[in-house]
Amino acid sequence: MESLYSSIKNDMSCKVSGKDLLPAKNGEEPTMQFLLEVVEILTNYVKKTFDRSTKVLDFHHPHQLLEGMEGFNLELSEQPESLEQILVDCRDTLKYGVRTGHPRFFNQLSTGLDIVGLAGEWLTSTANTNMFTYEIAPVFVLMEQLTLKKMREIVGWPDGEGDGIFSPGGAISNMYSVMIARYKFFPEVKTKGMTAAPRLILFTSEHSHYSIKKASAALGLGTENLILLKTDERGRVIPADLEAKVIEAKQKGSVPLFVNATAGTTVYGAFDPINEIADICEKYNIWLHVDVRKLSSLIKLANSVTWNPHKMMGVPLQCSAILVRERGLLQGCNSMCAGYLFQPDKQYDVTYDTGDKAIQCGRHVDIFKFWLMWKAKGTVGFEQHIDKCLDLSAYLYNKIKNREGYEMVFDGEHTNVCFWYFPPSLRSIPNGEESRERLHKVAPKIKAMMMESGTTMVGYQPQGEKVNFFRMVISNPAATMSDIDFLIEEIERLGQDL
Amino acid sequence: MESLYSSIKNDMSCKVSGKDLLPAKNGEEPTMQFLLEVVEILTNYVKKTFDRSTKVLDFHHPHQLLEGMEGFNLELSEQPESLEQILVDCRDTLKYGVRTGHPRFFNQLSTGLDIVGLAGEWLTSTANTNMFTYEIAPVFVLMEQLTLKKMREIVGWPDGEGDGIFSPGGAISNMYSVMIARYKFFPEVKTKGMTAAPRLILFTSEHSHYSIKKASAALGLGTENLILLKTDERGRVIPADLEAKVIEAKQKGSVPLFVNATAGTTVYGAFDPINEIADICEKYNIWLHVDVRKLSSLIKLANSVTWNPHKMMGVPLQCSAILVRERGLLQGCNSMCAGYLFQPDKQYDVTYDTGDKAIQCGRHVDIFKFWLMWKAKGTVGFEQHIDKCLDLSAYLYNKIKNREGYEMVFDGEHTNVCFWYFPPSLRSIPNGEESRERLHKVAPKIKAMMMESGTTMVGYQPQGEKVNFFRMVISNPAATMSDIDFLIEEIERLGQDL
Repeated sequence: MESLYSSIKNDMSCKVSGKDLLPAKNGEEPTMQFLLEVVEILTNYVKKTFDRSTKVLDFHHPHQLLEGMEGFNLELSEQPESLEQILVDCRDTLKYGVRTGHPRFFNQLSTGLDIVGLAGEWLTSTANTNMFTYEIAPVFVLMEQLTLKKMREIVGWPDGEGDGIFSPGGAISNMYSVMIARYKFFPEVKTKGMTAAPRLILFTSEHSHYSIKKASAALGLGTENLILLKTDERGRVIPADLEAKVIEAKQKGSVPLFVNATAGTTVYGAFDPINEIADICEKYNIWLHVDVRKLSSLIKLANSVTWNPHKMMGVPLQCSAILVRERGLLQGCNSMCAGYLFQPDKQYDVTYDTGDKAIQCGRHVDIFKFWLMWKAKGTVGFEQHIDKCLDLSAYLYNKIKNREGYEMVFDGEHTNVCFWYFPPSLRSIPNGEESRERLHKVAPKIKAMMMESGTTMVGYQPQGEKVNFFRMVISNPAATMSDIDFLIEEIERLGQDL
Repeated sequence: MESLYSSIKNDMSCKVSGKDLLPAKNGEEPTMQFLLEVVEILTNYVKKTFDRSTKVLDFHHPHQLLEGMEGFNLELSEQPESLEQILVDCRDTLKYGVRTGHPRFFNQLSTGLDIVGLAGEWLTSTANTNMFTYEIAPVFVLMEQLTLKKMREIVGWPDGEGDGIFSPGGAISNMYSVMIARYKFFPEVKTKGMTAAPRLILFTSEHSHYSIKKASAALGLGTENLILLKTDERGRVIPADLEAKVIEAKQKGSVPLFVNATAGTTVYGAFDPINEIADICEKYNIWLHVDVRKLSSLIKLANSVTWNPHKMMGVPLQCSAILVRERGLLQGCNSMCAGYLFQPDKQYDVTYDTGDKAIQCGRHVDIFKFWLMWKAKGTVGFEQHIDKCLDLSAYLYNKIKNREGYEMVFDGEHTNVCFWYFPPSLRSIPNGEESRERLHKVAPKIKAMMMESGTTMVGYQPQGEKVNFFRMVISNPAATMSDIDFLIEEIERLGQDL
């Protein structure tokens, strides 16, 4: 079928270029045609994304894509390309990419393609504005405020009191938490630098996300002052180890500042015992931050919370919030009062301007897609989505726990299912260095074959002493039991002869 | 005209909800209908955005929007809303927002709505992936690499050598520059914290963007260790002042670490004398960062450069890059080697994984819209766009420099035109405290009336001793001379009786 756009182009029988689009004179028609043609490409992609008969990806090595595929050249040039070529570029960009919304894409915690969220992103980019002032983002600023309050209510802070802001991802949200803790206890660091504070110590699980380590480096605390806490066999922090290390730090004259607890670690999906950790934090006057993947009633014990709707809630990337129980800290920590943006003599209530709370100046609108999804699903819809994902995790766990060739990294149901697959050739080899070495290579090999065949994608990694294992995290709303079955069949098909 | 979507909805004679969309069974039809209906709303908005007979904004105070406009309720609830209501919400969100692409929106440096950039954003959100690995963003990762190299070539570094990364905005790019400078001279700060370094001093113009101040607070250097440099009447750093302050810092036993020069300051649009500043930096072994708004051949003298395509180049928000002349520093400064993401045993060349260079973990795809615009415009197209904006600035400057009731904040043409408007009642009052006080209130009053009438938007602020003045920065590709004329007429119409 000839598309609207190409039929018009033929009619016009001349090369349409970007210059012919709005705001050009008579640009309305070509603009509408161009955008509709783009939408046709995008909606076709969306349809195929959910179609199990399409591949998850069409893998190529970097050098292959760099050399240029047929008609697809990544190089930029002096002169403009025609809009026709631009549309081809759009098609090819999608063709050689990864369908993260495909029902068999399990590679990351951020998976899936929520249609309402997608519509929200399209609108956000059409509005093309900036969160720093109410002046230029009145609706989005209010949506952010209301949504943050709702999130704090769900966390369990009385009346949803507190503060917060959306940030460009969980690592930055975690960085905020360390900054705010430092500001709370040593506000003069803002002006005088780290010399105004004693040696400050941060604590986090040996299984926690590396973002706390990034923050300790960036903020001038130093990664050596981040103490890793021992975990039990399920990957949960051992509270006694925390207390011992707090006491040790104090004995050395350092100041324990901050504990990061994780509600759902990245690899194991483990829940740190927040209750006991909170008691220790209270006893020693330490800031408690909780990096949340799955909510629990204990999270209210935290001083600050990182909550990433782009993970288990399936909101399109990026969507992350830092919530703070005490009001005023975020502003106090980050405000610099730039006169050209945050004029005090505006005609509206300038307490709605958010820019001075942020470490950013310009700030992308991440709220709208989330707000719109919340409207479309209701709170109950998010709950149902998460329950469904947990059911699928349980299904996978029960399917493989006694299956020949599989061994679980830890027992018991979890949000994450971590397991080794032993190809037949390895099953008879006795436990030992040789079997470990060979097992370590299995997951990467299977993963490479998966990507090359393009059928499915799942993550793997080693952890401490444990050699490479597969990690399944299910957050993809398109996945069903049949996709779990497919994954297992695929692992066995590809791993059969290793 | 009845839309596709609503006609189908009527046919189905039942309430369509988010649950009926893909990945739901038989979800393809309602999904396509819903997305097309959204696109209809968005394309109508795009058309109106460029139509001068529509308002720039329909202003409401925060309390008005919070109380709820007719049919538009920002509150989130337990239960889902129908898709019909979701579409109404989309329409209302745009209705009460600000048209940043309107030809008469001059409020910020980031203005305009580039249609190809918009298409790029729509595609980016449809692809919904993350920049951290080649694995899940192969095409985007390569586009970023090629584009960064091209940018370094334009900066003027030999063969485009060096490194870089896209970040969530100019403030974060500037923060990177300070982190990298610190890592270059005091790499042990990464592990040991700021105690491993002497007192470090940063320098920037008293007219520079507040992001360097934010960075000095966040990174543990302290805002007091950021020394502000004196500027001449045009807002340019005085090199002799820099050298004197460097010497003073050294005499006090501190270490001058970093100088930020600005190529086009936020308020005046001033160019710091990069040549002389670079000489001083070389002499005293100080890192030179340049925060670039407008390119010049001198920028190659920098050790690092912040370049924000979302400003003068008109790329949709957000799009900012930090460029670094020396390879390896970005990786060295930020790498934490998370095993679950950056497995060394992948089947492809893992040097393409970018995540360990970033302070973020997840990283939004900001490259595609920029790459696509570059394809559509060519390098020449960006140059033409910037030239056109500068021509309009000159037009405005020449129009008002001798016009009754206007006074320029500084003489000479510039990218920014900063001026006072004196209402007739003020013109006869002799210079003095009273006239200053009254003049200070003029710009805010006119701005408030502008917003309430919704006809145009322009920024204002005080600077140092100077009372509130208007600041015109033209980066909007839709603006023409007639819009400049309109702005002046509007200022006079609204300011007539003040």
